[in-house]
Amino acid sequence: MERKRTIEVATERATLDGKRVHIAGWLHSFRRLGGITFLLVRDGWGLLQAVSENDAEIAALLESGVGVESIIVVEGTVHVEDQAPGGVELHNLSVEVLNAVSKTPPISLNKRKLSANAVTLLDHAPVANRHPVRRATLRLSGGIMSGFRDILTSENFTEIQTPKIVAAATEGGANVFQLDYFGRPAYLAQSPQFYKQIMVGIFERVFEVGPVFRAEPHDTTRHLNEYVSLDAEFGFIQDHTEVMALLRDVLAHVFALLGECYATELALLHVQLPHVPSEIPAIHFADAQELIFAQHNVDVRGEPDLSPQDERWLGAWAQQEFGSDLLFVTGYPMRKRPFYTHPDPQRPEYSNSFDLLFRGTELVTGGQRLHRYTDYIAALEQAQLPLEPFRYYLTAFEHGMPPHGGFAIGMERLLMQLLDIPNIKLATLFPRDLHRLVP
Amino acid sequence: MERKRTIEVATERATLDGKRVHIAGWLHSFRRLGGITFLLVRDGWGLLQAVSENDAEIAALLESGVGVESIIVVEGTVHVEDQAPGGVELHNLSVEVLNAVSKTPPISLNKRKLSANAVTLLDHAPVANRHPVRRATLRLSGGIMSGFRDILTSENFTEIQTPKIVAAATEGGANVFQLDYFGRPAYLAQSPQFYKQIMVGIFERVFEVGPVFRAEPHDTTRHLNEYVSLDAEFGFIQDHTEVMALLRDVLAHVFALLGECYATELALLHVQLPHVPSEIPAIHFADAQELIFAQHNVDVRGEPDLSPQDERWLGAWAQQEFGSDLLFVTGYPMRKRPFYTHPDPQRPEYSNSFDLLFRGTELVTGGQRLHRYTDYIAALEQAQLPLEPFRYYLTAFEHGMPPHGGFAIGMERLLMQLLDIPNIKLATLFPRDLHRLVP
Repeated sequence: MERKRTIEVATERATLDGKRVHIAGWLHSFRRLGGITFLLVRDGWGLLQAVSENDAEIAALLESGVGVESIIVVEGTVHVEDQAPGGVELHNLSVEVLNAVSKTPPISLNKRKLSANAVTLLDHAPVANRHPVRRATLRLSGGIMSGFRDILTSENFTEIQTPKIVAAATEGGANVFQLDYFGRPAYLAQSPQFYKQIMVGIFERVFEVGPVFRAEPHDTTRHLNEYVSLDAEFGFIQDHTEVMALLRDVLAHVFALLGECYATELALLHVQLPHVPSEIPAIHFADAQELIFAQHNVDVRGEPDLSPQDERWLGAWAQQEFGSDLLFVTGYPMRKRPFYTHPDPQRPEYSNSFDLLFRGTELVTGGQRLHRYTDYIAALEQAQLPLEPFRYYLTAFEHGMPPHGGFAIGMERLLMQLLDIPNIKLATLFPRDLHRLVP
Repeated sequence: MERKRTIEVATERATLDGKRVHIAGWLHSFRRLGGITFLLVRDGWGLLQAVSENDAEIAALLESGVGVESIIVVEGTVHVEDQAPGGVELHNLSVEVLNAVSKTPPISLNKRKLSANAVTLLDHAPVANRHPVRRATLRLSGGIMSGFRDILTSENFTEIQTPKIVAAATEGGANVFQLDYFGRPAYLAQSPQFYKQIMVGIFERVFEVGPVFRAEPHDTTRHLNEYVSLDAEFGFIQDHTEVMALLRDVLAHVFALLGECYATELALLHVQLPHVPSEIPAIHFADAQELIFAQHNVDVRGEPDLSPQDERWLGAWAQQEFGSDLLFVTGYPMRKRPFYTHPDPQRPEYSNSFDLLFRGTELVTGGQRLHRYTDYIAALEQAQLPLEPFRYYLTAFEHGMPPHGGFAIGMERLLMQLLDIPNIKLATLFPRDLHRLVP
């Protein structure tokens, strides 16, 4: 008899009713009430209940040393039962134990509510991530990556994988991990920025899903030292508004795919997917500062960047004014943006760049980049950066690059904001932070 | 007028005939024959020819300092012309230069044949990769990744991204890059092996596409120090033959997708896709050694592993005997496989593992893993490895893991073998080797 998946038994319960099936998985829970035993079996598709009124059937589970999380195979007769989880259960059981587990899990995996604190969950991630709430949370990462890739592939973007070991810091600054590369110093890539731009010269449209590394010595609930960046870059744009339009479509597609293919996870987590309007509202950086002054009587005009409080105010305004979870802030001052940022031709102290705020927190950064070789030379000089480490990057521009731009979405941050998770580390399978290298 | 892609003009030539269109891209080539000028424009979709008999039309290109690789916009009238590349060309041009390039490319990008040697191509990769042959080669990586993900997603595998910074070497050995993690030593992951196994306990079926790092100090045409690994791992298998069956389906799907979506690239590269039989032929390691002795009178019986020569002989035999580019070798001796390898229950000195040879070279390694906690403790003791660095990994087994297995495909090696590329570095966008950290 071929193994059935738990979800198959539930969705095909009408046709399977009365038939014998076998399922396999983890012994999720084991309860005895009076003379009746209720088992929940968990596999990669869900949970299924099996019920026995005869201990001889489940003798294998009554042996000492067979506890929850044991690996079992259950054969039984399908019985439609609207009260049971999934509307179906198995009767007349025959149970085999494939791998007996006696050790008690470090947290209760079969309590509906996840009550352990973040440190416990992270310390015991290899087992704690089995909890249905953790499992559903982490599975959504797969959907985010799928949605991101699907729409970009359909728009003729080519997927790339760029080097993670690099000769020099990408974005400048000290927040870079150094490693020993056959006796020479090398660094972990802080972003695929330079390589994805170079690849615009080769494929015109590219994307990458990969790890980036930031040696920021901050111990907060918003920092990860290794995270997954969803990067896109493409050529022949007019300006940053085309990048924003693409990003809008990407997010709309990601949320649509989650709604379609991850409905079980979203229901379990009580998540309401945000509505992505056909045009996401946008406000210029300078206007945003004026708005904050007018609304909150706090004068941030002249500040080169927005504070987290500013972002929260703007997020609330977008919600109130447009009913939107999403808000573009455009035109950040050039002096706070990296050297490759393209200025606004009309107001060169502002840039053709943007941040996307999602529920009042920055989720995506993007914009138009410089594309003329001479502009790069001038920008590096102005930033007082040496040319030599950038030589390989500059050759792409020396040999012709179109106007181009792109963006980077922090995957874990998207998941955190979407699920309202208080700590970004819980949006990660196995986070890396100032203190945590294990598991 | 909206920009048309070159491929759209070619495929819609019948309906566009006589109409005005505009295209944009790189000035791929510029030839003057008598009074006639032939331009080839290259964009992210292909090449299109534009023809002018009137220098006034192309005055912008005749300015000094406008050479090949300049970024141009060409407006013209579509003219069906069977002799032209793609069967179409543009006449009555109007040309604008968006970004003038005067510097000569380090290699000829518009010669059909790629004659530069590997070192030149790699040193100048940001520009050399624009050559149509390089471009087509590298674009196939995108197809390989798509095909791998598509079929596994459809089989309910969940995509994961595991940490690349780890506290201890994964596979043991000295070939590991060390980095400074906030004053502590840490390492770059040699594979996602431990994490993908742990994730079987959470999702049952997982895959990952990501970088792996090997500090092997070898300077050959077959080594990369950073490469992309296509990893899969899944639970509730009988033994390694189920892993082999999945791998067969994955490769069949990858090649089918390449044939369907990358026909242009394959034609340009004159690539014949291998046929993947419904069951790939397999030979046991011990039988393979006997075969080599019988056929070549070289006695490798008792050797713990196959040499490259052995693999070539076996590849030739598979071709001759079964007409197959692919051959599984199963049952490698336990003493040469990593500690987590599951033994063959019938012949415990051999393992439930396999290599897949593709045209006589190892392409994939995989097999069944141990799943019982006590087996892990015994295996680590036998391998004389300390338990402590493996503690987080062992907890997954202590709390119940099903029989499971998986495989890892080296993406660049697959591309190299598929295209018969003599140097694996040329199957990589920007390779990392003993001497090369730039570009």
